[in-house]
Amino acid sequence: MDNLSVDHLTGIKDLTPRDIEIIFETADSFKEVINRPIKKVPSLRDITIANLFFENSTRTRLSFELAEKRLSADVVNFSAASSSVKKGETLVDTVNNILSMKVDMVVMRHPNPGAAKFLSERINARVVNAGDGTHEHPTQALLDSYSIREKLGSVAGKKVVIVGDILHSRVALSNIYALQKQGAEVMVCGPTTLIPKYIGELGVKVEHNLRKALEWCDVANMLRIQLERQDIKYFPSLREYSMLFGLNKELLDSLSKEIVVMHPGPINRGVEITSDVADSKQSIILNQVENGVAVRMAVIYLLASKIER
Amino acid sequence: MDNLSVDHLTGIKDLTPRDIEIIFETADSFKEVINRPIKKVPSLRDITIANLFFENSTRTRLSFELAEKRLSADVVNFSAASSSVKKGETLVDTVNNILSMKVDMVVMRHPNPGAAKFLSERINARVVNAGDGTHEHPTQALLDSYSIREKLGSVAGKKVVIVGDILHSRVALSNIYALQKQGAEVMVCGPTTLIPKYIGELGVKVEHNLRKALEWCDVANMLRIQLERQDIKYFPSLREYSMLFGLNKELLDSLSKEIVVMHPGPINRGVEITSDVADSKQSIILNQVENGVAVRMAVIYLLASKIER
Amino acid sequence: MDNLSVDHLTGIKDLTPRDIEIIFETADSFKEVINRPIKKVPSLRDITIANLFFENSTRTRLSFELAEKRLSADVVNFSAASSSVKKGETLVDTVNNILSMKVDMVVMRHPNPGAAKFLSERINARVVNAGDGTHEHPTQALLDSYSIREKLGSVAGKKVVIVGDILHSRVALSNIYALQKQGAEVMVCGPTTLIPKYIGELGVKVEHNLRKALEWCDVANMLRIQLERQDIKYFPSLREYSMLFGLNKELLDSLSKEIVVMHPGPINRGVEITSDVADSKQSIILNQVENGVAVRMAVIYLLASKIER
Repeated sequence: MDNLSVDHLTGIKDLTPRDIEIIFETADSFKEVINRPIKKVPSLRDITIANLFFENSTRTRLSFELAEKRLSADVVNFSAASSSVKKGETLVDTVNNILSMKVDMVVMRHPNPGAAKFLSERINARVVNAGDGTHEHPTQALLDSYSIREKLGSVAGKKVVIVGDILHSRVALSNIYALQKQGAEVMVCGPTTLIPKYIGELGVKVEHNLRKALEWCDVANMLRIQLERQDIKYFPSLREYSMLFGLNKELLDSLSKEIVVMHPGPINRGVEITSDVADSKQSIILNQVENGVAVRMAVIYLLASKIER
Repeated sequence: MDNLSVDHLTGIKDLTPRDIEIIFETADSFKEVINRPIKKVPSLRDITIANLFFENSTRTRLSFELAEKRLSADVVNFSAASSSVKKGETLVDTVNNILSMKVDMVVMRHPNPGAAKFLSERINARVVNAGDGTHEHPTQALLDSYSIREKLGSVAGKKVVIVGDILHSRVALSNIYALQKQGAEVMVCGPTTLIPKYIGELGVKVEHNLRKALEWCDVANMLRIQLERQDIKYFPSLREYSMLFGLNKELLDSLSKEIVVMHPGPINRGVEITSDVADSKQSIILNQVENGVAVRMAVIYLLASKIER
Repeated sequence: MDNLSVDHLTGIKDLTPRDIEIIFETADSFKEVINRPIKKVPSLRDITIANLFFENSTRTRLSFELAEKRLSADVVNFSAASSSVKKGETLVDTVNNILSMKVDMVVMRHPNPGAAKFLSERINARVVNAGDGTHEHPTQALLDSYSIREKLGSVAGKKVVIVGDILHSRVALSNIYALQKQGAEVMVCGPTTLIPKYIGELGVKVEHNLRKALEWCDVANMLRIQLERQDIKYFPSLREYSMLFGLNKELLDSLSKEIVVMHPGPINRGVEITSDVADSKQSIILNQVENGVAVRMAVIYLLASKIER
């Protein structure tokens, strides 16, 4: 079978356009599987996967865990709260120890940018990056593009705006890479303070007026405001941020065409989008979640065939 | 097969007497299963169940998890500590996301009364309430009645006293509903401050003298004192509470007949009951725990046949 | 089949030399299993094991969980953070409740010395001690000896020095028992304040000079410094401790023979051993981790055949 050009999924940056196609074609098959009454396949019955979450996450961990279980892999979970990391052990030691227990694949979320790549160069197992700091979150970008492809037929030629805090968002960066590799046009929209300086080098448009950005696009991906992060200042205040960059039904209905609304979740209802937008027929938010399991099954399945025996 | 009149188990209040019988007859079969060397049945091999615990719990979560695994269901666990709930997401969003991952059933413990019901009206999956604040804890009441039926042959016509903090207890309320629906007489016993004002409307007797209550009953269900809750005042002090409403061997032996002693656990030995009472042959506390797995297997099995495909 | 003389593994002290041989011979078979592409055996498909961790642990819990899953046992996990223990329940009540749910074996880590033994005398299930305070950590000592046997052909007649904080170490005590039962000579090395007073009664040599200890031995087991424990004072300061009792490459290379270096992990690199020592070809640290799964599979498999039906 045609397989990926990479041995690990550490970021979208390393993928070829053909890699993305292969993942999507494989995800198509798995999406059929998870919509059958019997949602499991025995493919990875001899594989052990460790989910290493050095940061809290509900949906990403659950989505990976379900993907793994539906492939019949054996799964062990490990979260920072109960980890040796607190005892001062280095990341490589932690993971080498887990690998010595004969784990075949590591799905890792870590606060440090580059952690997944660093690991993949030092261990003898497949690595899937489930988010490394503000760097990349490749499976999120893949499921986002997969959901656009499902809704609009293809990603190529579509105009996608990513709205919100681009500066602190691994979702934004991975999406920019993924969309461009598939031939979409990308714009980012947010306050100047939350747009990174290097954005020009990435070849994306920048727009500070939400209405103008929405009029331009086919798809708006509304990033979540990270209210729990005390270190981020939402300019000039959260309330004004929300007035300038939040999407409500009135604004959505006033546009000259019907755009698709996405959100990586979890939603702060009434902040970045209002409830009536989140629950509208233009929203594909729950499709994104559903597709997440299929896309992660595809990534794990494809990398598993590269495990050294 | 005869099945339940409800699509979810959110409370005993919604069940018919026949529903309770069906659950008990199904639990009888599963009790045989879990006492065999091979304790599993393949019944729910194609079902995924999410255990959502927004409050800590050891035995209830373990009991549900064992019940699910013995039915061969796939299980994912989710606890509040690592949840998106901390990121400000609403309950419905959290659960809708989990459901989009193709979860078929949700077992939920939540601090808010009515949370399970609220959820069951908004999501497309079976819901089992594993405790919603001070409201209901239906599987506990079912396993309590099942244990009385096992010990005394039937629940109908029996006299049951529930002793302790009735006001803050979901176990008490669910037990009152369950016992009455099966034709038992119910009394509550405790200090005036811990008996809810609406108790009269429920048709239960009230008694403030423990000896009198015990002389009246066939079964005493001794509720646990929630020492960890700072907001509850045990009148007039814990020590005096224990002297007035705690059950010791001397008192038990001085009664004119041999009553059955129950406790939902975890026990505060020496507070609501002494060790010699807990470990006496009149106590069916460990039978309650054992029956919990069989009763939960029955509830899950019956609701699973109602999953929409 | 030849089986163990004990019904539980609460400590090495209770094992006969033949018990240790049986465990190692069984581990040999399982080590073959976990190095095959298909790493599972169906042996314990009808067994439920509860991992009860009343103290945090990454590698020990993961190692046990993998061992259990590779034997196809059903596994439930339980950690102190979410336990009834916080609600004031006694250990026996907690475990009796879990057993009433028809759990066949308990793997327990607990802060109290003697907790595993205490439990094994009171419950009707097999008990494996995964560390009880400063008392014993028998599976660690078994995997340590197994790794020496693998590297050097046998344990009998070898000279082993255990370096570091002997006083607070369950690893040290279990290793002393295990090594002596197999006919090894044992020395301990560390500052006087971290050597227990009763060490003489155990028949081990004591040496306060690390170079002398290393010149004497075939194997050096470098214990980890428990930096997270505020109650331990590393004499006279951590930095001086490290200078006197830490092992670096220069010291290792200056010895008159090539010794084997072990560490129970997690390593504080640069404290008890330097990185170049940890990663050198004399180090068998990762072999210890790998062998941990095989040895634990052996212990669980052997005790499982003693489960009462």
